[in-house]
Amino acid sequence: SRTYRIAVLAGDGIGPEVMTETLRVLDAVEAKFGFNTERSVQLVGGAALDATGNETPLPAATVEACEQSDGILFGSVGGPKWENLPPDIQPERGALLPLRKHFGLFANLRPGVCLPSLTHASPVKNELIPEGFDVLCVRELTGGVYFGTPKGRENRDGEPVAFDTMVYKKSEIQRILRVAFTAAMGRGKKLVSVDKANVLASSVLWRETALEVAKEFPEVELSHLYVDNAAMQLVRRPGSFDVLVTENLFGDILSDEMAMISGSLGMLPSASLGAKKEGSDLYFGMYEPSGGSAPDIAGQGIANPIAQILSAAMLLRYSLGESDAADAIDAAVAKTIDDGYRTGDIATGAATEKKVGTQGMADAIL
Amino acid sequence: SRTYRIAVLAGDGIGPEVMTETLRVLDAVEAKFGFNTERSVQLVGGAALDATGNETPLPAATVEACEQSDGILFGSVGGPKWENLPPDIQPERGALLPLRKHFGLFANLRPGVCLPSLTHASPVKNELIPEGFDVLCVRELTGGVYFGTPKGRENRDGEPVAFDTMVYKKSEIQRILRVAFTAAMGRGKKLVSVDKANVLASSVLWRETALEVAKEFPEVELSHLYVDNAAMQLVRRPGSFDVLVTENLFGDILSDEMAMISGSLGMLPSASLGAKKEGSDLYFGMYEPSGGSAPDIAGQGIANPIAQILSAAMLLRYSLGESDAADAIDAAVAKTIDDGYRTGDIATGAATEKKVGTQGMADAIL
Ligand SMILES: CC(C)[C@H](C(=O)O)[C@@H](O)C(=O)O
Ligand SMILES: CC(C)[C@H](C(=O)O)[C@@H](O)C(=O)O
Repeated sequence: SRTYRIAVLAGDGIGPEVMTETLRVLDAVEAKFGFNTERSVQLVGGAALDATGNETPLPAATVEACEQSDGILFGSVGGPKWENLPPDIQPERGALLPLRKHFGLFANLRPGVCLPSLTHASPVKNELIPEGFDVLCVRELTGGVYFGTPKGRENRDGEPVAFDTMVYKKSEIQRILRVAFTAAMGRGKKLVSVDKANVLASSVLWRETALEVAKEFPEVELSHLYVDNAAMQLVRRPGSFDVLVTENLFGDILSDEMAMISGSLGMLPSASLGAKKEGSDLYFGMYEPSGGSAPDIAGQGIANPIAQILSAAMLLRYSLGESDAADAIDAAVAKTIDDGYRTGDIATGAATEKKVGTQGMADAIL
Repeated sequence: SRTYRIAVLAGDGIGPEVMTETLRVLDAVEAKFGFNTERSVQLVGGAALDATGNETPLPAATVEACEQSDGILFGSVGGPKWENLPPDIQPERGALLPLRKHFGLFANLRPGVCLPSLTHASPVKNELIPEGFDVLCVRELTGGVYFGTPKGRENRDGEPVAFDTMVYKKSEIQRILRVAFTAAMGRGKKLVSVDKANVLASSVLWRETALEVAKEFPEVELSHLYVDNAAMQLVRRPGSFDVLVTENLFGDILSDEMAMISGSLGMLPSASLGAKKEGSDLYFGMYEPSGGSAPDIAGQGIANPIAQILSAAMLLRYSLGESDAADAIDAAVAKTIDDGYRTGDIATGAATEKKVGTQGMADAIL
């Protein structure tokens, strides 16, 4: 039977408990669709800091296991315990940024979905999103002001001055735009490119390149929004967007804003994709929930496991090519919601709802 | 009687019509409080482009009139007609950025207010903002990635590469934080500083400096949020914020997001302040509505003039020292809303509302 290797990095907070349930779901689709995953379970984030005496949130063994895998299933990292460590070894920054850079994970796909039956959980008024919404945010993840140099601090005229460099090569912009256009082709064929071309030189190149790449995808309707305007429109009319594409920092801000607007942070997966594997249409990628490690509810068995379970479905689809299994998971999750199963984060208290915990939700999906 | 000089730059779209009503309100407080403004009416934005054959949106005569004034009352600029001009002479960028830089307007104060009686106009669910909210966003306006150098484009390894520099001197951070802390002292004494200190060197200096300046204001409770988290929290719990302070680009994004969340873009003024005038507590400043030129409704007499009228009140308070007159305007606007007067942007259609146009709203305030 088909065998794959995956690295499993559960991390901190609710990470381990939602990962446990996700691996049960993975077991089930493996049995049903006749394939097999060899799982290398590794430490990351605060768990790794604890195990290494605060040396690193990303041990070499973890990176090696990831290198030997077909894809990484990531939980979540961070918590109050590690908040005051130096930035470089903090769980989030010290694990996520090196993983993205090391594996060249330049394309971050973040669906922002509000199901029609869950509009009550969105902070936005129901009449603005009568049918919910389904936006895909494509964020460039290895360029821009995150990694640009020079970055640092020096003394000028007797005082400290600190600087970062927002920089993009044309080829970096082209490849992320191609990912976004391709995604739009498989959806509603509408792409909004977000930039700040009225102020930033890097955004001027971004917009020019978007217009060029658009010629390769004549069926997709491309439009442009300034980032400040995008931050406004997402609040007012999230349902009018299909695919959004933007650079690293803008994507960080807007995809989180969109996730909050969806009202279902506990249900949103994400994929961070690198280059395609040689001679195939599959990507090496890392898959993780959009929400954080939620230390406040960790260990109570009440976290919504859906974001992690849907992240596994994305792994199956993009990195393993097991799209039937991915479809089966997506469908099971949709049916479970339709059937009224609700963890606390998406419950209204209505009598028709079946209130469940982490494990109960996974049981229903199974 | 006390005499001041102000520059009046109405600009484009709804700018001229809301400015006309604002000058009537100014006439009224001048008569009542016994002072006088000499008004130099000047071209700016698209109006200036049209008059100069697309040479500039900011003619030298306009800048001179501003130099000779105690403060600038600005309308709004831009519209479809000038959208495809080169960035440098586009109405918004080509007028606003040079004015900010020329007059050193480093402190942008943007109130984000949702009155308890207008929560229906907010895109956010009423139960999240039962009492409305009142947030003040303090945005640094002359530093960061807007003006940092190097900024531009070059060829590297045979392809275009474009770059911008996000840079802050410690003294720039200190002065904007002092403005924000001072504002917090006059309000709820809670300040949230927004940065991306887990990624940006400039944000690390920002956070350090915030902690230092905090010692000068022991009564103010300072906390920090990463910008991605701030973009989320503003949607979910706008009412929990008092004063926000952040750097130029983050402030551009978050203050617009907040304005949209307030639901009353047509009611939000803003002030862009420079240094204090010698030997006084007054600032040179520019005052303008937070919303745009709204070309779609221009010339119909239906735009809400309140943002422009409250901008004039801020001018009176911060640049002219006529705070009784400023208070009178603020109170008149509040009473007008209480009395049920509504322009279309804030109306629900309820029978108790008095539906008015631009002029009718100004009449009610008068
Ligand atoms: C932890 C941080 C460095 C990271 C980022 O800014 O990219 C996080 O916010 C994210 O979006 O994954
Ligand atoms: C027009 C543009 C340059 C400007 C900015 O980004 O500062 C505008 O968005 C604003 O906020 O006043």
